[in-house]
Amino acid sequence: MRVRTRVLLLAVAIALPCSAQDKRRDEIKKPLVLASQGSFFVGGESKSVTGGEITVNQMYVQYQIPPNADQHAPVVMVHGCCLSSKTWETTPDGRMGWNEYLVRKNRSVYLADQVSRARSGFDGSIINAVKAGTLPPSQLPNVLTASHQVAWSVFRFGPSFNKPFPDGQFPIEAVDELYKQMIPDLNSLLPSPNPTWKNMAALAVRLHGAVLVGHSESGFFPEQAALIDPSGVKGIVSIEMPCVTTLAPPQVSMLAKIPTLIMFGDHLGDVQGGPANWTTSFDSCQKFVQQLKDAGGNAEMMHLPKLGIRGNSHMLMQDKNNLQLADLILNWIDDHVEGKKGGGSHRR
Amino acid sequence: MRVRTRVLLLAVAIALPCSAQDKRRDEIKKPLVLASQGSFFVGGESKSVTGGEITVNQMYVQYQIPPNADQHAPVVMVHGCCLSSKTWETTPDGRMGWNEYLVRKNRSVYLADQVSRARSGFDGSIINAVKAGTLPPSQLPNVLTASHQVAWSVFRFGPSFNKPFPDGQFPIEAVDELYKQMIPDLNSLLPSPNPTWKNMAALAVRLHGAVLVGHSESGFFPEQAALIDPSGVKGIVSIEMPCVTTLAPPQVSMLAKIPTLIMFGDHLGDVQGGPANWTTSFDSCQKFVQQLKDAGGNAEMMHLPKLGIRGNSHMLMQDKNNLQLADLILNWIDDHVEGKKGGGSHRR
Repeated sequence: MRVRTRVLLLAVAIALPCSAQDKRRDEIKKPLVLASQGSFFVGGESKSVTGGEITVNQMYVQYQIPPNADQHAPVVMVHGCCLSSKTWETTPDGRMGWNEYLVRKNRSVYLADQVSRARSGFDGSIINAVKAGTLPPSQLPNVLTASHQVAWSVFRFGPSFNKPFPDGQFPIEAVDELYKQMIPDLNSLLPSPNPTWKNMAALAVRLHGAVLVGHSESGFFPEQAALIDPSGVKGIVSIEMPCVTTLAPPQVSMLAKIPTLIMFGDHLGDVQGGPANWTTSFDSCQKFVQQLKDAGGNAEMMHLPKLGIRGNSHMLMQDKNNLQLADLILNWIDDHVEGKKGGGSHRR
Repeated sequence: MRVRTRVLLLAVAIALPCSAQDKRRDEIKKPLVLASQGSFFVGGESKSVTGGEITVNQMYVQYQIPPNADQHAPVVMVHGCCLSSKTWETTPDGRMGWNEYLVRKNRSVYLADQVSRARSGFDGSIINAVKAGTLPPSQLPNVLTASHQVAWSVFRFGPSFNKPFPDGQFPIEAVDELYKQMIPDLNSLLPSPNPTWKNMAALAVRLHGAVLVGHSESGFFPEQAALIDPSGVKGIVSIEMPCVTTLAPPQVSMLAKIPTLIMFGDHLGDVQGGPANWTTSFDSCQKFVQQLKDAGGNAEMMHLPKLGIRGNSHMLMQDKNNLQLADLILNWIDDHVEGKKGGGSHRR
């Protein structure tokens, strides 16, 4: 009987969710229920080319709305350089991405492909003009294609190529699947200011208020969108990018009205070579957070190692602890954007 | 009392689904339940470029699996020229696309962006080489960008630009939203045979059997995939494209083992000018269907006007009667692929 009881207790212990990690794992196994889903475009204008008109500068957006979406502000996520919205979906090793996890946490989620990338398309007319000889090759866009080597260093998978950090959170055994996500970046074709910024601001208005999330190349896009039109921007989450610290005081004051979270992972100074300098980026964002605070803003620098969370790469939405990090962001939104701890001057 | 009864009867009549159309409309309002969803890549290989290696020829696939998916074969859908998987999603006027409708009809749905398009990315190294002067401009890809004018004629929205057919099924008031879906087509960069074909065949095998659906540029891709490896191809749905009628007899025999549906819309000969010749395409597919039948195949040409269904454009998955057409395809799959009327030699 004693043995039996022990076995029973053990079975109960295994069956019960005994940690946040287990709870998360059980939750995400349930069927996913959606009130609705779909896709649409924001922005876009006609341009005359040989043979008629084409549409350029439109931004493709894919969304899912859970049944209890009205509990929370919608979340708009925009990917970084040489990537698409795939960034936020199934991780390279096949785990759930932030897109679905946030829906399961009762948030409407909007994934945007940057203007000139992926399903948003790009203006190909210059390439044809150079091929036809009516424009010189110097007019071609600079196509940014991150090689495996560049990705390894910029995304901080390890100190040098193919040598991972021992405590690295990125699922390095599936790095080849990440390389497949990396697609040419034609942002050099875009007019200035980048139409993605205006489109993000317009999307936030269309949604009657949203939290904007950017990463890497797009990390400061939520701020840039808010500088164009802050009226729909209820909160900003900026992940791993250089911050602009030269904004004019009225711009800083405008941004200070929007609760802002900045998140950085681990090993910022531990990679040799490569085009990124993450300690400089981190320092610029610390300065930016201080500027917002000095202007009365509700701004936070969340440096994961400071919370005891170690080994996170630049692709932290794909790291092994990605859902733990998602919870950190969601809790921050609940507290700082949706009012449980004040802030959010754009609350509705 | 008599008046009251009449009002009541009228109310009941309005409330009850009184037609297939009404039934469809009610069904699609319910919350959507998914067993799972996600995205992944098929194929892809490393290529050495200046600065390291990149991955090319991978195919991005997004999927949704309903709770009762085991009732039916999975469906893989591949879009046409100058488009992405957006083709199958929310229509330009905001109605439900085939992607979600099929999931609601208990099919697992897999949407693939063609290799070199949208989230599948493309090989941008040639553009950089021409810009750097190491390759001549003649080596640039021919970027296919369909202008509004070309789209109007090829997609058969009306006899001439901005003049719609009076009975046209395309939601022409939202044509600007379709134009936003049209993105540069870089298939001219691809090696031969087109890697999308091999990737589609591999995907069908990975799914332990699937129905492959192609449209326009990709209309004959299911056949091309099956010619590479038929083992996973349980059925083929080819929509509006030119058919290859010069296959060798062993190739025709191989394809004849796979139930095949070909679908064409209306107004095939009613558009002036433009690069497409839909009557020629239709004739080639009638010949192809006959070739399959002569080889003992289960093949069908479904010409919608012959069924009394009028006004369908080339973009029939976005037309106002798109769900009616989806039902035609699903019924055909049930009958001819899943065995209710025999055929399907690749059944499992």
